[in-house]
Amino acid sequence: MPVLLAPEQAVPLESLLSQANVVGIDCELPEGAGTGTPLIRGLGSLSGAGPEEISFLSNPKLAGQLQDCRAAAVIVTPAVWESTLKGHATAFRSVVCSEPYLMYALLAQWFDGHRLRGLPRGIHPSAVIADSAEIEDGVNIGPHCVVEEGAHIGRGSRLGAGCIIGAGSVIGRDCLLHARVTLYHGVTIGDRCILHSGCVLGADGFGFAPDPRTQGAWAKIAQLGGVVLGNDVEIGANTTVDRGALEDTVLGNGVKLDNQIMIAHNCQVGDHTAMAACVGVAGSTIIGKRCTLAGAAMTAGHITLADDVHISGATAVTASISKPGRYTGVFPYSEHSDWQRNAAVLPQLGALRRRLRALERQQSAADTE
Amino acid sequence: MPVLLAPEQAVPLESLLSQANVVGIDCELPEGAGTGTPLIRGLGSLSGAGPEEISFLSNPKLAGQLQDCRAAAVIVTPAVWESTLKGHATAFRSVVCSEPYLMYALLAQWFDGHRLRGLPRGIHPSAVIADSAEIEDGVNIGPHCVVEEGAHIGRGSRLGAGCIIGAGSVIGRDCLLHARVTLYHGVTIGDRCILHSGCVLGADGFGFAPDPRTQGAWAKIAQLGGVVLGNDVEIGANTTVDRGALEDTVLGNGVKLDNQIMIAHNCQVGDHTAMAACVGVAGSTIIGKRCTLAGAAMTAGHITLADDVHISGATAVTASISKPGRYTGVFPYSEHSDWQRNAAVLPQLGALRRRLRALERQQSAADTE
Amino acid sequence: MPVLLAPEQAVPLESLLSQANVVGIDCELPEGAGTGTPLIRGLGSLSGAGPEEISFLSNPKLAGQLQDCRAAAVIVTPAVWESTLKGHATAFRSVVCSEPYLMYALLAQWFDGHRLRGLPRGIHPSAVIADSAEIEDGVNIGPHCVVEEGAHIGRGSRLGAGCIIGAGSVIGRDCLLHARVTLYHGVTIGDRCILHSGCVLGADGFGFAPDPRTQGAWAKIAQLGGVVLGNDVEIGANTTVDRGALEDTVLGNGVKLDNQIMIAHNCQVGDHTAMAACVGVAGSTIIGKRCTLAGAAMTAGHITLADDVHISGATAVTASISKPGRYTGVFPYSEHSDWQRNAAVLPQLGALRRRLRALERQQSAADTE
Repeated sequence: MPVLLAPEQAVPLESLLSQANVVGIDCELPEGAGTGTPLIRGLGSLSGAGPEEISFLSNPKLAGQLQDCRAAAVIVTPAVWESTLKGHATAFRSVVCSEPYLMYALLAQWFDGHRLRGLPRGIHPSAVIADSAEIEDGVNIGPHCVVEEGAHIGRGSRLGAGCIIGAGSVIGRDCLLHARVTLYHGVTIGDRCILHSGCVLGADGFGFAPDPRTQGAWAKIAQLGGVVLGNDVEIGANTTVDRGALEDTVLGNGVKLDNQIMIAHNCQVGDHTAMAACVGVAGSTIIGKRCTLAGAAMTAGHITLADDVHISGATAVTASISKPGRYTGVFPYSEHSDWQRNAAVLPQLGALRRRLRALERQQSAADTE
Repeated sequence: MPVLLAPEQAVPLESLLSQANVVGIDCELPEGAGTGTPLIRGLGSLSGAGPEEISFLSNPKLAGQLQDCRAAAVIVTPAVWESTLKGHATAFRSVVCSEPYLMYALLAQWFDGHRLRGLPRGIHPSAVIADSAEIEDGVNIGPHCVVEEGAHIGRGSRLGAGCIIGAGSVIGRDCLLHARVTLYHGVTIGDRCILHSGCVLGADGFGFAPDPRTQGAWAKIAQLGGVVLGNDVEIGANTTVDRGALEDTVLGNGVKLDNQIMIAHNCQVGDHTAMAACVGVAGSTIIGKRCTLAGAAMTAGHITLADDVHISGATAVTASISKPGRYTGVFPYSEHSDWQRNAAVLPQLGALRRRLRALERQQSAADTE
Repeated sequence: MPVLLAPEQAVPLESLLSQANVVGIDCELPEGAGTGTPLIRGLGSLSGAGPEEISFLSNPKLAGQLQDCRAAAVIVTPAVWESTLKGHATAFRSVVCSEPYLMYALLAQWFDGHRLRGLPRGIHPSAVIADSAEIEDGVNIGPHCVVEEGAHIGRGSRLGAGCIIGAGSVIGRDCLLHARVTLYHGVTIGDRCILHSGCVLGADGFGFAPDPRTQGAWAKIAQLGGVVLGNDVEIGANTTVDRGALEDTVLGNGVKLDNQIMIAHNCQVGDHTAMAACVGVAGSTIIGKRCTLAGAAMTAGHITLADDVHISGATAVTASISKPGRYTGVFPYSEHSDWQRNAAVLPQLGALRRRLRALERQQSAADTE
């Protein structure tokens, strides 16, 4: 059930559009583009929005959906406005905006922020907060949270139910921790970070030394570093970021991690790099700025990816990449019987190449005879 | 330590067999098939079951194990009964059943249900339940649970310790939430669903728009849709199902998800589709009914899989599949040195094909000379 | 922020070195190797350690970093001591040790143990502990933990905040459960185990029988077995180990699992086997002793891996392996356009092989003419 404000909370379209000021983009409501000044209760897709919702058209290929759109208002580019809507009667008001997709993002934030502002405030009495923890003003802490010795939570941050903040960990300002986020000791996160349920920051990196006491046994290398997150980082549900062995594991400003990602110890991830779900980054790997790793990609440990490297889904990166660009390594799927037939050739590839060379030599010898 | 009832709780074999009525399958205890009417305390494999346990033979290849079986009773097909057991003296009673594997499933449910019926009842005083939450009769809520404003929990449902039910979320009847399940706000689940520990339903989908304020930065697209689960859905431990961007992420009736699966925002999964552990389904993908995705398979986003499509383990599905059948794409493993030799040829495949064509043309030219 | 003891807690170098006695390795402080007897507050890398920290050189390739090392002391092998340091003036004290890397592990344990000894003791009043649970002496239980009926926790074990110990589960001595570990009912773990946040032991294995009541529906096979862990097992954050169907899922002594690993029902993992993050092991698979599975490897179900088998990262093992050694199956990545060109040939591999054979036959026929 998508968000829909109660009827008495409906907002005039003009006041919603003031969100454009947040990032300084153009967003106008031309005269004569539809009728009236609607009150808006929600945000919907072109096909799904109802008469009290605003929608948007960012992909020109979907312009055909405008005809049946039941929304109260639609955000479009100047080009669409000029070519398709200007001078035509439409059931919706047209909002002309240089960046419809970004405007959609801002409106979605506004609607979700409206929900967040309605949540309970203050510190729930069931939360267990150590005497030495520092809680700045305006912090909201949900039921059954635990804040350990020496932890610090910055102004305006919110902890959902059941969050655990380990000893000495530091949370910046205006962070949003959804229910059941776990920070070990010695984890530092910046301002405006969003952490989703089940994520774990600061568990031990996976480090062992062969132990001569028993054949094959491992001696644990306790992990003494921490985890440091920059500002505006988002961490998805059940994602894990391990603490460093001796120094910190570091995620830069604006890093966005989806769900069920694993960042191993000692990694460094550059500003604004984004990773989709199920990515794994092995230990001590350094990833540049503005990279993207699509779903289920993984990287080996102790390698370096340059800035602006883009890894396709399900690709295993086993060596460093120094040149920006897109990289892929996926076995193409096919019907199972076809796959069986073709995959059976793979173990013979080296032999096939040799046979091909032999034929080429014979041919070449024949040609020169 | 497998389940074994206390001696005083042992059940007569006949009364156990009444479980067959639940689904209306034939299940008979022929005269003379073994001796006596044993009391049963547990359920075991052919090789592991002891003299107070019942076992089953569903795979005819294991019939040889009947000889040494120490179980009190064994469920077999009519065919095995006729060919192997009828007229022979056995230490166990034979139970003749048209569907031994299904009967095993029902008995296992009965034994586990016996355990569940012994669990504490009522609402634990440490649970934090909002005034506006609606809790129907016969609901059991464990220690340290949190039920937020406007949530609804249907009759007969059970929440293990530490579950968190977000604002306005709805749980149907007779659901079983194991310890530490997290539902965000606006999540709806049907009747008789089973959710395992650590699963997270309703975290934000991974949506960002490029933000012109900073080079490379991302503007969050708040996720306003919800998550809807049908009836009889099971969700494994630490699996995540994200909320939709504008509409709901939907899992149909009878969908079964194993552990550590990721279902991204806006996906739709058809009735009775089952996915094994570690599967990832990227955003806005639509999966048909009765599909199976084996372990660690993954799919790209914005694609469609037809009904009755079966994906092999570790296969990456990068495009839509419109035809039922089995699909595979896995690089065959081999000893590392063999792999190195053969994998080195892969980057030359295009070139090898060209060279082969060139040889064919020369040959063909030679033949026509 | 790496661990650094408060100045008043600094430890004389000699007393730190007594850690070597724990495992009986040689560790000496030769006269004249640097000056003074420093007090040590922490442990750092060669490049990062400050003047109150000890460091180590285990990889001879890094010997060049000794020159600029600011550490108070450095652990080196006898060979490095003899060849590089003996008789030279250095700013640091040299510690000569037969096993520098193991010595580093022991010192890291010592520093982390120092932190652990400072944590709160006893049973937090917000913990909910069933009357029939047995808690041995010297057990520490954090806030909001739940210990259910009949559970047993051995002497010296510590449960971080929010752990849940299911009915009848047994924890050995001197275990360390970090915050928010979940054990279902009937889970048994040995002594000195370390379990990280978000791990779930004992969730239901993924077992279903086709249910004739509805087309395509599945009947749940309730999982009646348990989970058994040996001594000295470590389980990473958000890793899941499912309970067995009828018998137990078993991890041997000294098994080390990283984060986000999935061990399915009925698996057996041999002593001292280690798995890196994101590995998946499907049901009923048996893995030998001293194996390693690198990150994101996966195995099919119902297969067996011999002792001392090593699986490369991102490799899918689809059949049993009976011979020790290293096994790999990864599609090599490349720039996307190269990949497209070469991957397009894969569906034709069978055909290419046939064409090559045809050419070879023609050539051979031509040669014999």
